[in-house]
Amino acid sequence: MAKSPRRVAGRRLLLPLLCLFFQGATAILFAIFVRYDQQTDAALWHGGNHSNADNEFYFRYPSFQDVHAMVFVGFGFLMVFLQRYGYSSLGFTFLLGAFALQWATLVQGFLHSFHGGHIHVGMESLINADFCAGAVLISFGAVLGKTGPAQLLLMALLEVALFGLNEFVLLCLLGVRDAGGSMTIHTFGAYFGLVLSRVLYRPHLEKSQHRQGSVYHSDLFAMIGTIFLWIFWPSFNSALTSRGDGQPRTALNTYYSLTASTLSTFALSALVGKDGRLDMVHVQNAALAGGVVVGTASEMMLTPFGALAAGCLAGAISTLGYKFFTPILESKLKIQDTCGVHNLHGMPGVLGALLGALMTGLTTHEAYGDGLQSVFPLIAEGQRSATSQAIYQLFGLSVTLLFASAGGVLGGLLLKLPFLDAPPDSQCYEDQMCWEVPGEHGYEAQEALRVEEPDTEA
Amino acid sequence: MAKSPRRVAGRRLLLPLLCLFFQGATAILFAIFVRYDQQTDAALWHGGNHSNADNEFYFRYPSFQDVHAMVFVGFGFLMVFLQRYGYSSLGFTFLLGAFALQWATLVQGFLHSFHGGHIHVGMESLINADFCAGAVLISFGAVLGKTGPAQLLLMALLEVALFGLNEFVLLCLLGVRDAGGSMTIHTFGAYFGLVLSRVLYRPHLEKSQHRQGSVYHSDLFAMIGTIFLWIFWPSFNSALTSRGDGQPRTALNTYYSLTASTLSTFALSALVGKDGRLDMVHVQNAALAGGVVVGTASEMMLTPFGALAAGCLAGAISTLGYKFFTPILESKLKIQDTCGVHNLHGMPGVLGALLGALMTGLTTHEAYGDGLQSVFPLIAEGQRSATSQAIYQLFGLSVTLLFASAGGVLGGLLLKLPFLDAPPDSQCYEDQMCWEVPGEHGYEAQEALRVEEPDTEA
Amino acid sequence: MAKSPRRVAGRRLLLPLLCLFFQGATAILFAIFVRYDQQTDAALWHGGNHSNADNEFYFRYPSFQDVHAMVFVGFGFLMVFLQRYGYSSLGFTFLLGAFALQWATLVQGFLHSFHGGHIHVGMESLINADFCAGAVLISFGAVLGKTGPAQLLLMALLEVALFGLNEFVLLCLLGVRDAGGSMTIHTFGAYFGLVLSRVLYRPHLEKSQHRQGSVYHSDLFAMIGTIFLWIFWPSFNSALTSRGDGQPRTALNTYYSLTASTLSTFALSALVGKDGRLDMVHVQNAALAGGVVVGTASEMMLTPFGALAAGCLAGAISTLGYKFFTPILESKLKIQDTCGVHNLHGMPGVLGALLGALMTGLTTHEAYGDGLQSVFPLIAEGQRSATSQAIYQLFGLSVTLLFASAGGVLGGLLLKLPFLDAPPDSQCYEDQMCWEVPGEHGYEAQEALRVEEPDTEA
Repeated sequence: MAKSPRRVAGRRLLLPLLCLFFQGATAILFAIFVRYDQQTDAALWHGGNHSNADNEFYFRYPSFQDVHAMVFVGFGFLMVFLQRYGYSSLGFTFLLGAFALQWATLVQGFLHSFHGGHIHVGMESLINADFCAGAVLISFGAVLGKTGPAQLLLMALLEVALFGLNEFVLLCLLGVRDAGGSMTIHTFGAYFGLVLSRVLYRPHLEKSQHRQGSVYHSDLFAMIGTIFLWIFWPSFNSALTSRGDGQPRTALNTYYSLTASTLSTFALSALVGKDGRLDMVHVQNAALAGGVVVGTASEMMLTPFGALAAGCLAGAISTLGYKFFTPILESKLKIQDTCGVHNLHGMPGVLGALLGALMTGLTTHEAYGDGLQSVFPLIAEGQRSATSQAIYQLFGLSVTLLFASAGGVLGGLLLKLPFLDAPPDSQCYEDQMCWEVPGEHGYEAQEALRVEEPDTEA
Repeated sequence: MAKSPRRVAGRRLLLPLLCLFFQGATAILFAIFVRYDQQTDAALWHGGNHSNADNEFYFRYPSFQDVHAMVFVGFGFLMVFLQRYGYSSLGFTFLLGAFALQWATLVQGFLHSFHGGHIHVGMESLINADFCAGAVLISFGAVLGKTGPAQLLLMALLEVALFGLNEFVLLCLLGVRDAGGSMTIHTFGAYFGLVLSRVLYRPHLEKSQHRQGSVYHSDLFAMIGTIFLWIFWPSFNSALTSRGDGQPRTALNTYYSLTASTLSTFALSALVGKDGRLDMVHVQNAALAGGVVVGTASEMMLTPFGALAAGCLAGAISTLGYKFFTPILESKLKIQDTCGVHNLHGMPGVLGALLGALMTGLTTHEAYGDGLQSVFPLIAEGQRSATSQAIYQLFGLSVTLLFASAGGVLGGLLLKLPFLDAPPDSQCYEDQMCWEVPGEHGYEAQEALRVEEPDTEA
Repeated sequence: MAKSPRRVAGRRLLLPLLCLFFQGATAILFAIFVRYDQQTDAALWHGGNHSNADNEFYFRYPSFQDVHAMVFVGFGFLMVFLQRYGYSSLGFTFLLGAFALQWATLVQGFLHSFHGGHIHVGMESLINADFCAGAVLISFGAVLGKTGPAQLLLMALLEVALFGLNEFVLLCLLGVRDAGGSMTIHTFGAYFGLVLSRVLYRPHLEKSQHRQGSVYHSDLFAMIGTIFLWIFWPSFNSALTSRGDGQPRTALNTYYSLTASTLSTFALSALVGKDGRLDMVHVQNAALAGGVVVGTASEMMLTPFGALAAGCLAGAISTLGYKFFTPILESKLKIQDTCGVHNLHGMPGVLGALLGALMTGLTTHEAYGDGLQSVFPLIAEGQRSATSQAIYQLFGLSVTLLFASAGGVLGGLLLKLPFLDAPPDSQCYEDQMCWEVPGEHGYEAQEALRVEEPDTEA
C-alpha cells in the first residue's frame, strides 16, 4: 500500500506523457498524410458525376454506428462483471479504443489506401479502425485487471501495427476472405492477448482472488455489454460485405447463428452446472460465440441451416471451454485469461476460419451465379479453383496464429518494462489503483454517511 | 430448500434436453425448408435486373436493428425491476427470444411465404420473427418470477404457433391492417399471458412477497429497458409499413404519441401517488403506452393531433390501471400479473385496435390520394368500403382475444405438467432457483469480504 | 421533514395540473396548426413525382434515432451519477424531454416552416425538436438536484421559446452556419442554465453536500450515458447536414475529434489527480467535449487533423475546468453547476463557435469546389465574402450569449415563484422529495428483509 514518493511521481507523469505523446504523434501524422476521400471531400464529391444517394455513407453508416456501439458499449460493459474493476474496464476500454481508432487509421491507411502520398479516409476507414479497436479490446480482456493503463497503451501501439500487417497479408497478399474477422479480429486478438498473458504470468495472483469474481449488480452491468453485442453482431459481420445481396445475407446468417449459440449455451450451462444451475459467465460470453464463428462464412452461401449448425456448435464448445478448459489453461499452461477470451474469441475464431475454408471449398458457380464475383473474385475470374482458395483460407489462419503469437511474446516483453507501473499481485482487479473511488467500499461518501448516522439516531 | 436427489437430477437434464431437442428440431426443419429469398441469395439477386440500392435491406435494416434492440434490451431490462430476479429476467428473455426467433421463422414461413416447397427468408422474416418474440416476452412479463425456464420454453412453443396462426387469420384471411401489432402483438401477447397466469394462479404467493418489489438499483436497470423501448418504438411500428410516405408517417405518429403518454403518466402518477409522489412503476411502463395505442393506427392518416390525443389517453388509462386495476385483478380475478402487462399491453392494445377501427372507418379517398393503395388496398381497389373494412378490423380484435384466451388456457394446462419444475411459492422471484448467484445476498464474494475484514482491522 | 398539509395538497395538484394543462394546450395547437409535410402525407407524397427511395426518411432516419438515443439515454443516464437522485435524473429527463419535443415542434414550426396557416412536420422537425430538447437537458444539468419538476417544466416552457427564437435569428436572419449546434444548442443551453442557477443561488447548499457525490454503481450508470453520447455524436452533428458529402464529412470529423478529447482528458485527469489517479467525473464528461467543439465546424473542410487538434484542446480545457474552474464558479461567482455543464457545454461550445468562425474565414472556392453551395450558400452566391461570413458567425455567438443570459435571468425569476415547490436546502439531490423510493435507503423492501431475518436465524 505504501508507495515510494518517486514511484507515485512517476505514475503521475507516465500516463499523461504517454497520452500526450501518442496524441501529438498521430496528430502530426494526420496533418501530413490524412485527407478526406472522394466520398467525403466537398470538392471531390461534387466534381464527380453521381447522385447523393450513391454515397457510401448511405450503404454503411447505420452498420458503422452499430459496430461503434459494439466496440465501446459492448466490449466495455461486458468487462464490468468484475466487482471492483468497473471504472477501469469502462475507462480503459475508452482510452484504448480512442487511441486505437487514431493509430489504426494511420496503419491501415498506409497499408490499404495510400495513394499519391496521402491516406484517404471515409466511411470504410472508420469501420476498419473500429474493427482493429475491437481486436485490441479482445486482447485487453485476457489481461484485464492485471495491467495498468500505460502498459495497455503500449500494448495497443504494438497490436494495432501487427493487426494492420496481418490484415494486409491476408486480405491483400493472400486474397483471403474474412468479412467479419473470424481470423483477423477474433483469432488474432485472442491469441495475441493469451500469449501476452502467458508472458506476464503471475504465480501469486491468488492474492487478488477475492476480487476476481462478480457481484450481483456487476453481472447485470455485464449483460448490457452482452446484449448489445448480441443484437448488433449482424451489423458487425455485414458492415463491409458487398452491396446488394451481400449485406442482408451476412446479417441473416449471423442472426440465426447467434440464436443457436444462445440455445446451446443454455443447454450446456445447465448440464454442467452445480445442481443444474445456469452460470452467468456462460450466458454473458458463450451465447455470443455464434457471431464469432460465422465471421468468415456469413457472407458466403452458408444457408440458414448452416448458420444454425455453426452457432450451435460454437456455443457448446465455448461453454465447455469456460467450464473445463479455462482452469487447465491457468494451472497447466500458466495462461491467466480474465475474461475467457480463449472461449469466446479464440476457439470460435479458429472454428470460424475452418468453417470459412470449408464453405470456400464447397463453392460452386451454380450456388452464387453472377454474385460469385463479389464474394470470391479470384474464383470468378478463374485465377483460383475453389479448393485452392480454401487452402489459401487455411494458410491465412496459420499466418494469423503466427502473427498473434509472435506479437504476444513481443508485447509481453515490452509490458514487463519495470517503469510501466504494473499493479502488484495483491492489487489486481482493483479500481483504486488508478481511480479516485467513492462510496460503498469505504471512501468519502461512506464517511459522510457515517457522520450522518449519529444525527439520525440522536 | 431440501430437494430430493431425483428432482435435482431431473432439473439437471430437463432444460438441456428441451433446448437441444428444440434446437435440433428447428435445425432439421431449417435444413429441409428454409432458403434465402430473392434479395438475400447471391444467384437470385444477381439474376434480377435492379440496382443494389433497391435491395429491401436498405429500406428495412436500420429499423430492424432498432426492433431487435427493443426486444432484447428493452423487454429484457424492463423486467429487471425485481430485486432478486435480474439474472432470470435477462437470461430467460435471451433464451425465450432466441428460441422464438427460430421457431417463428418456421411458423410464419409456412403460413406466409411457403412457395415451391420452401420458406424464403430475408429482412422481413427477421423483423416478423422479432415481432413474434416480442409477443412471447409480453406473456413472459405476466408470469415473471413464477415459472421455470422449461415451462417458459413450452409456453413459447405454443404461443409462437398460435401467434402465427392468429396473424395469418387477421392479415391474410381477413385483410386486417395492423402494422405495429396493437392486436397481433400487444393484445395477443398480453391476454395469452394473463389467462395463462390465471390458470397457474398461486393462492400462497405472499410467501415470496418480500421479493416482489424493486430496490433502488433494480429500478435504474429497468429504466434502461424503458428508455430504449421509448426511443425505438417509432421503428417498431414503422419497420414494415410501406416505403415512401408510410414509414415516416408511422414513425412520426408514434413519436408524438409517446411524448403524450409520458406527460399524462407523470400527471396521473403524481395525482394518485401518496403525498403527490411519483411512482417508478408508472414511469417505467405507462409512459410506453403511447407506442402500443398507435400500433394499428400509426400508419394511417391519424394526424399529429390524433397521435397526441391517443397517447395521452393511453398513458392515463395505463397509470390508473397500475394503481387501481392490478390489485383487483389479483384479488377478484385471481390473475397475478407480475409486470402489469394488462396495463401496458392489454388495455392500450385493445384501445389501439379500436382506434385503428375508428381511423379505418373515417378513411376517405381525399385524405390518402393515390397513397390509399398502400395502406388500404382493399378499399382502394373498391372491394370494401371504409365502414366494412372497419368492421373487419373489429372482427380481427375479437379473433385475437379468442385465440389469446384459448391459447392461455391451453398453455396454462401444459405448464402445470408436474415434471416441468415450477418454483415453489416461497421461491418465486428468486434467481437462486436457477442460477449460481454471487455476492451481496450472502454467497462466495461476500464470504471473501468477511474473511478480509479482520485483516484490515488488524 | 414535517410538511404542512396544505403544502402537500398543493404539490399533489401542482405537477398534474401543469402536465395536463401543457399537454392540453399543445394538443389544441397541434389540432389547429400541425400537418404532415409533403414527405409524410399519403396524398401529397403520392401526388409528387419521385421514387420512394428519395424520401427524406431514408437519408435522415438512422441519424434521427441516434440523436433520439443521445437525448434520452445519453443525457438521462449521464446525470445518474448522483447517489440518491437517479429516479429524478432519469424521470425528469423523460418528462422535460417529452414536453420539449411537443413544444419545440410548435415554436420551431411557427418560426421555420409556417406556410399557408399550417406547420408542416416531417423527419427534420423531429430532429430539430430533439436538438431543442437537448438544450433544455443541458440547462437541467446545471440545476440538477436543486429544482422540482414543476419548476423544470416552467423552465422548459421558457427555454424552448427562447431557443427557437435564438435559432431563428442565427440561422434564418443572420445566415449563420451551426449544423451541430455549438452555439444554438451547447452554448445556449449551458449559459441559460448557468445564469438561471446563479439567480437560484443557495448559500446553504452544504446541508445536502453528502448527497452531492457519486457512489460506485451510480458512476457505472453514468457511463452508460457517456458512452452512448460518445458513440452517437457523429450522428448528432451530421443529422441535418447536406446529403452526399456533407453527412459523411461531418460524421468523420466528429469521430476523430472525440477520440482526441478522450486522450487529452485521460492525460490531464491523471496529471492533476491526487497521486496521479484518474477521476471518473472527467472521463464521464470531458471526454465528450470533442463532440461539442466541432458542432459548428464539423460540416466544413476542417480536415481530419483539424478535428484531432480541436478535440484535444477541448478535452484538456474541459478537464481543467472541472478541476480548477468549477470550485471558483461556486465560491466566487455563486454559480452552483451540478453537472459541470460549463465545462462540457459552455467553454467547448464557445470554443466551437470560434473554431467555426475561423474555418469560415479560411474558406476558399478551391477547398470546396462545387460543394461550397451546400455549406456556405451565401459565399457561393457571392453575397458574402468568407471574412464577412466569419464575422456573422461571431455575431451569432454574441447573440446566443445574450439570449441565453437574458433567458436565464428571466427563468430564474420565474422559478423563484414560491408556489413552485422548490426542495429545501437539506433535501436537495434526494429522490425521496418526489418519488416513492424502495429498498437500500431504509424503506419497504428493507423492512421486509428485517422482518425476515429473525426467521432465518431462528
